[in-house]
Amino acid sequence: MSKSAKHKRKRKHYSIPTVGASPGVVFIDEQSLKPVIVFHTYNVHFYEVKELDNIENLTEIVANKEFNYWIEIKGFKSIDLFDTLSADFGINKLVLEDITRPYQRPKFEEYGTYDFAISRMLHFDEQKNLDNDQFSFILKENVLFTFQEGYKDCLDPVRARLIAGKGNIRIAGSSYLMYALMDIIVDTYFVILGEWSEELDLIEDRLFDKPDRSVMYDTQLVKRNLINVRRVVWPERDKLNDILRSDSRLIPDQTKMYIRDAYDHCIQLIDMVESLKEISASNIDMYLSIISNRMNEIMKVLTIISSIFIPLTFIAGVYGMNFAIEDPVTGKVLPQNMPELYQEHGYLYTMIIMGLIAVLQIIYFWRKGWFK
Amino acid sequence: MSKSAKHKRKRKHYSIPTVGASPGVVFIDEQSLKPVIVFHTYNVHFYEVKELDNIENLTEIVANKEFNYWIEIKGFKSIDLFDTLSADFGINKLVLEDITRPYQRPKFEEYGTYDFAISRMLHFDEQKNLDNDQFSFILKENVLFTFQEGYKDCLDPVRARLIAGKGNIRIAGSSYLMYALMDIIVDTYFVILGEWSEELDLIEDRLFDKPDRSVMYDTQLVKRNLINVRRVVWPERDKLNDILRSDSRLIPDQTKMYIRDAYDHCIQLIDMVESLKEISASNIDMYLSIISNRMNEIMKVLTIISSIFIPLTFIAGVYGMNFAIEDPVTGKVLPQNMPELYQEHGYLYTMIIMGLIAVLQIIYFWRKGWFK
Amino acid sequence: MSKSAKHKRKRKHYSIPTVGASPGVVFIDEQSLKPVIVFHTYNVHFYEVKELDNIENLTEIVANKEFNYWIEIKGFKSIDLFDTLSADFGINKLVLEDITRPYQRPKFEEYGTYDFAISRMLHFDEQKNLDNDQFSFILKENVLFTFQEGYKDCLDPVRARLIAGKGNIRIAGSSYLMYALMDIIVDTYFVILGEWSEELDLIEDRLFDKPDRSVMYDTQLVKRNLINVRRVVWPERDKLNDILRSDSRLIPDQTKMYIRDAYDHCIQLIDMVESLKEISASNIDMYLSIISNRMNEIMKVLTIISSIFIPLTFIAGVYGMNFAIEDPVTGKVLPQNMPELYQEHGYLYTMIIMGLIAVLQIIYFWRKGWFK
Amino acid sequence: MSKSAKHKRKRKHYSIPTVGASPGVVFIDEQSLKPVIVFHTYNVHFYEVKELDNIENLTEIVANKEFNYWIEIKGFKSIDLFDTLSADFGINKLVLEDITRPYQRPKFEEYGTYDFAISRMLHFDEQKNLDNDQFSFILKENVLFTFQEGYKDCLDPVRARLIAGKGNIRIAGSSYLMYALMDIIVDTYFVILGEWSEELDLIEDRLFDKPDRSVMYDTQLVKRNLINVRRVVWPERDKLNDILRSDSRLIPDQTKMYIRDAYDHCIQLIDMVESLKEISASNIDMYLSIISNRMNEIMKVLTIISSIFIPLTFIAGVYGMNFAIEDPVTGKVLPQNMPELYQEHGYLYTMIIMGLIAVLQIIYFWRKGWFK
Amino acid sequence: MSKSAKHKRKRKHYSIPTVGASPGVVFIDEQSLKPVIVFHTYNVHFYEVKELDNIENLTEIVANKEFNYWIEIKGFKSIDLFDTLSADFGINKLVLEDITRPYQRPKFEEYGTYDFAISRMLHFDEQKNLDNDQFSFILKENVLFTFQEGYKDCLDPVRARLIAGKGNIRIAGSSYLMYALMDIIVDTYFVILGEWSEELDLIEDRLFDKPDRSVMYDTQLVKRNLINVRRVVWPERDKLNDILRSDSRLIPDQTKMYIRDAYDHCIQLIDMVESLKEISASNIDMYLSIISNRMNEIMKVLTIISSIFIPLTFIAGVYGMNFAIEDPVTGKVLPQNMPELYQEHGYLYTMIIMGLIAVLQIIYFWRKGWFK
Repeated sequence: MSKSAKHKRKRKHYSIPTVGASPGVVFIDEQSLKPVIVFHTYNVHFYEVKELDNIENLTEIVANKEFNYWIEIKGFKSIDLFDTLSADFGINKLVLEDITRPYQRPKFEEYGTYDFAISRMLHFDEQKNLDNDQFSFILKENVLFTFQEGYKDCLDPVRARLIAGKGNIRIAGSSYLMYALMDIIVDTYFVILGEWSEELDLIEDRLFDKPDRSVMYDTQLVKRNLINVRRVVWPERDKLNDILRSDSRLIPDQTKMYIRDAYDHCIQLIDMVESLKEISASNIDMYLSIISNRMNEIMKVLTIISSIFIPLTFIAGVYGMNFAIEDPVTGKVLPQNMPELYQEHGYLYTMIIMGLIAVLQIIYFWRKGWFK
Repeated sequence: MSKSAKHKRKRKHYSIPTVGASPGVVFIDEQSLKPVIVFHTYNVHFYEVKELDNIENLTEIVANKEFNYWIEIKGFKSIDLFDTLSADFGINKLVLEDITRPYQRPKFEEYGTYDFAISRMLHFDEQKNLDNDQFSFILKENVLFTFQEGYKDCLDPVRARLIAGKGNIRIAGSSYLMYALMDIIVDTYFVILGEWSEELDLIEDRLFDKPDRSVMYDTQLVKRNLINVRRVVWPERDKLNDILRSDSRLIPDQTKMYIRDAYDHCIQLIDMVESLKEISASNIDMYLSIISNRMNEIMKVLTIISSIFIPLTFIAGVYGMNFAIEDPVTGKVLPQNMPELYQEHGYLYTMIIMGLIAVLQIIYFWRKGWFK
Repeated sequence: MSKSAKHKRKRKHYSIPTVGASPGVVFIDEQSLKPVIVFHTYNVHFYEVKELDNIENLTEIVANKEFNYWIEIKGFKSIDLFDTLSADFGINKLVLEDITRPYQRPKFEEYGTYDFAISRMLHFDEQKNLDNDQFSFILKENVLFTFQEGYKDCLDPVRARLIAGKGNIRIAGSSYLMYALMDIIVDTYFVILGEWSEELDLIEDRLFDKPDRSVMYDTQLVKRNLINVRRVVWPERDKLNDILRSDSRLIPDQTKMYIRDAYDHCIQLIDMVESLKEISASNIDMYLSIISNRMNEIMKVLTIISSIFIPLTFIAGVYGMNFAIEDPVTGKVLPQNMPELYQEHGYLYTMIIMGLIAVLQIIYFWRKGWFK
Repeated sequence: MSKSAKHKRKRKHYSIPTVGASPGVVFIDEQSLKPVIVFHTYNVHFYEVKELDNIENLTEIVANKEFNYWIEIKGFKSIDLFDTLSADFGINKLVLEDITRPYQRPKFEEYGTYDFAISRMLHFDEQKNLDNDQFSFILKENVLFTFQEGYKDCLDPVRARLIAGKGNIRIAGSSYLMYALMDIIVDTYFVILGEWSEELDLIEDRLFDKPDRSVMYDTQLVKRNLINVRRVVWPERDKLNDILRSDSRLIPDQTKMYIRDAYDHCIQLIDMVESLKEISASNIDMYLSIISNRMNEIMKVLTIISSIFIPLTFIAGVYGMNFAIEDPVTGKVLPQNMPELYQEHGYLYTMIIMGLIAVLQIIYFWRKGWFK
Repeated sequence: MSKSAKHKRKRKHYSIPTVGASPGVVFIDEQSLKPVIVFHTYNVHFYEVKELDNIENLTEIVANKEFNYWIEIKGFKSIDLFDTLSADFGINKLVLEDITRPYQRPKFEEYGTYDFAISRMLHFDEQKNLDNDQFSFILKENVLFTFQEGYKDCLDPVRARLIAGKGNIRIAGSSYLMYALMDIIVDTYFVILGEWSEELDLIEDRLFDKPDRSVMYDTQLVKRNLINVRRVVWPERDKLNDILRSDSRLIPDQTKMYIRDAYDHCIQLIDMVESLKEISASNIDMYLSIISNRMNEIMKVLTIISSIFIPLTFIAGVYGMNFAIEDPVTGKVLPQNMPELYQEHGYLYTMIIMGLIAVLQIIYFWRKGWFK
């Protein structure tokens, strides 16, 4: 576990804006993917999806207000794409820069003829590390552009609902579609927090069964992940609140009622994150107190054994001294030297005294509650 | 204790919304109970209660504004029920979804012709674990719907007051009944916190009498439960405040005066929760300092005994050496080798020196205050 | 100390409202005292006090606006009393319930013809435990009712000023009297905090002179008491602020000027409580670091003595081995076995080597700074 | 250090208002000093200073609006002084009480014809303890009264600027003078914090060079002083903000521009206090981790020496046993008893085995990194 | 590392304003540099840069509104410079004092005909210590003054863009240039935080590989630097917010749109600082738990070895006692004294018992999990 932990954190460096670059310049990373453009046309009775090569000449198509359009753009490796967005759709350069720089916080901004919003998609990668991708929205009257760096996402349920045509999704306009996407992104956070909640439970079981140092490492890891999620959830809540309070004519009251629902989910997420953080902290406290307790136990064992045997060994040492009762050279008798050694029951009495000392000590330690 | 603790927390997983589901779709869990519908008709002079099979055709009955009606719905396993609520009473689908998804925070929302509110009922289950059930209200002019997942609740005192007809309960309209239910739910929190307060006192007694590791476990358990209660009490306060500030025509000023009383209770609850949390934290601090103290005492015993006897054992060891005063093979006399062993009072002097060393050490440790 | 501490906390259980009771029902505890009613009539030139049996027929007397009236009610064991207050003086039932349920936070509420306020009197009982009694005010134009559960209080200085007639007390109306009572209650908090401030100083002295585990217990006790005071002082401040911001016509601007003064005192109290809490925390930190230091010292003593004597004892042990230079049975000479024992100065050299080892170790430990 | 620390804190008891005293009564402490009244008359072209015996008949003099007047009152032992202020200048009794009770927080209050403000002068006394004196202002149109308990202060630079007549000081009116005094008082806080900042650096150096327990004591002392300063700086900021937002006609916009500057200083001070607190906390953390580390080292020494020599001593002990190869009484040969002792190289092999055990253990501890 | 750490912090003393100095007096430090004045003239089609000796007679030049002017002032050692700014350009003395006193927090102030702003440039000096220089702006209609103490800065990319004439920089006026400079200063913070983020990762690697005390020192160092950065970033955010909310006519809405972008960056920086602080704290927690664990391991080794060998040594000691089976002087046989020594298999049985004791202890410790 600790190994993968290191790897994960190595990769998580903060994206740093290029110092001194002009603002409003689209940033195309060398490693970015070739754009895939998916064009959905739909209304209550109709649904069609096709893949486009570019978004030129789209203005005429989307001018037909009988339909709603969802233009998914996946991968950013095309400067033309962004030029067209700027020229044909009048999107501000700062917005386009924000879309291409994938380190934005969730936010919502109104630009008169269109609204701009950013969400963050959280998902685990192959090594079970948490990835955090940017997902941007440009909402116009009957058009919704969405932007994502990679091809993979968690939005298939929404696409399926669009095809099935059930519920509000084809009726309630582009702002409802934006809501549906934001909502599904927020809902995946519950899944992620749910997994960590279970991991914390497993860690807690280990705390009770066999606490070792991995408890500390793994809890710290979850805690650090929670910090990252919190960095996403709080601004997400602010974003949804901004939408609720905005008077953008692109977002009707009906959509806001749904946004309010997503906002409630966000509050619940914050609740969960804070609770999980408190549980992590309490696991760590618990672990540290277990270590202290264990140290106490180790010391008790050492102290009991040492305290009992060291005095006894001393006594044995005394009667192992070679003070002679008779000088071997001169043959002179020295009756004061260790007469105990030459008494009938010297050995027995010594053993009894030793036993008494041991018993007294055991009683003393018992009284102190050291054997419990 | 620790065993049940684990079991409890195992069960407490966060309910996770189905990712990508359409909003506003009523969610009927497979394990949910068959609905029991209790229909109360009352006014100052009249009270009648009966159990219904369904709520169809109720609109005509409740149109009679001479009476107030309380419709209790317990158990949700009937999609028809919610369809009728939507069709006959014009309840928004999002509201119905919130009722059936039991992980909502306490909240209050106005929908023009009706108000919607959620409370959370806390109670201990058979294993003394804290359960947390959702209780929802739909308030119309003279009708109050309430929704609960299970059949058991803590509302019998209100039902009894309704039957008895004492006090305001039959006079002050449906909003007063909603208040009375909210108030009794909040009042049960006091009972729960009271029990934990007593448990913390018991834990504290153990801290003074015989602190062991269960102190830590049990305090952490109470602390975690307090975190859960706090997650309920704070939004409950916000909810009551929202009601106080709302200008819903369904909630007259007289009811608000009572709501204000419940709001005061909520503030007291928050006070209690925070105080109990501080007491938990101080118990834990105390326990850790007791562990440290105990370690100190253990180490003192070890150090005193080792320090006294190790030097003495060394001396005994020296005089246990076999340096010979006479070479047994050649018979050569070696008068420099351990002449102490062959002196008249060698043994006595050695014992006196040993005693002196021990006494000096005891004085030294006494001075250091190690015997206190 | 620890014993009384336990007793104190045992008694401090939170009063819990009766679950499901009708709101607005006066609660007369069985153990409550028989009411003593003291009736003060006063104006600039006149002062009279008498004890009443009940408050019936008072409405006519207090209708005389030439005088101000202070009606002290001590002890609540009379349901008639509260009925009269409700019937004759038009006091709301919720107010009367709040008066009789002694677990209210300080608060201020306006009810048109009268204002209602709650203060909390803190005082030490016989065992030096902190008690916390409720003191309620009902302020009418020229009448002030005050309510207290017990007969004892800290208000004699105000009664004396009323008799003496010095200062504003007889001139400035009933609202000024209410202020004077609130002010004296708040001022007693300073005395209580002052005592704890001194206790913390005494504890700190013990920290420097002879830190033992009672430092921890006593500091925790003060800290817990501070938490209780804080629970009183913060809402007290809010209450005074509510009075300052209220536009009740019963509280003239002149009184508000004085209330502002009491408000300033309250802020100072909050300051003191927070400072004392920080001092408690720093005492505890200090104590824990002293324990750690002491552990270090204990370990140093053990390590120095063990490290010096254990190797020496080993050497003595080696030369205490009985490897024979001559087989006693066969008489075969074994010259390789411990020839040191049969050398002229073997004993001397051994002792010198032992001394060298001890000296080297002492130098090593000295260098490490272990003797400082 | 620790000794002076105790003394300092002993003296720092909170001033407690007399419980139950009438508000608005000037409080003349027995130990207060005889008042010294310094009367400055100045305008752009003129400056005169003289010492007065009392402030009677001053109203006529200060009625001359051609000049500004600064009346310094040092020492409060004169009830007449305050009576004159009340009678001649119409100062509210509550203001006069605040001036004479030296435990007020910094504040600013408007009273129509005059403004009242309190600052707190911090300075070190002879024993380098922090003193905290109250300095009060009464600002009238062209008159500034200032009040201080003692004769010593830090205001000489302002007096010098007044004599020199440079800068705005004689031009910009009494409110500017008040600003100048407030500003110099705030500026001395920088000096005090600067000294503590240096002390913390010195403590930190000791942390690296020879950390002992005084590090803890001294850091706690600085931290406690910082708490005291924070209690002054935060309300000082609020006071300056109150002045900025007040619409008192006594404080023209030009003065407010300067007050804004002092306000900025105050924010910087708060910054500094918070930073120094964090540095103190980090010093303490560091110290505790150093203690832990040192404990680790002590234990390592003990464990290495004990672990190496205890087994060896055991082996020596075994071969020190007196199992006899021949019964001395019967002469019976017991060849199974310790034949090692009678082998040619028994001693040598034993020593080699002992050396091997020691080497293996050293290698084991080396591998564990215990020698680093 | 620890050495440079000390040096760094030594140098970082807080600049302290001269106590009692007149406000609004320009402060020229003796060590300040000779001013270098760089004068940029530019519009869409034109760009010229030259170095000036002084700024006299500039008013006439900049009166030509066809061009924008950027006047860089590096080094403050010229009182004339500031006199000219005051006299010719009407800059307030307090502003000039703020420019020359390099301890200001980031702020924005409007003065009617010009706006004043302060940023703080962070950069590492030669010893990799963090320096924190003040950078001030005075913005007039078509003129931007900038002030910096030293000659070095991080602004070359902006100068390059000005020469190149690409983007908005020459088109959008002086307020845009101010934005561009503020933005580049804020962007360098990302670089600095990025380095610390990497350092924390390296420290974390050491935590896992070979945690020693430098982990603590280095993390504390990063944490302290983060505290310093936080002291810059929070007021920077407030400053940018002040600009956004100001209605200064010198800052058009278009510039504000860009300022909003810089504001977003600032929020991200705050996010990063807080996250890095949490990571530091978690590293320290981790380190302390590793120390505790290691102590546990050391103690386990000591306890296992001592517990096994001390009892065995005692047994060996017992059989090393010299209780005699025959009095050498009298020849009396004492058969009770240590008969074990004279039994055929006494030695063997003793060794077996010793082995059993050791094995039992090893099993006991194994069961306790001490070998894991």
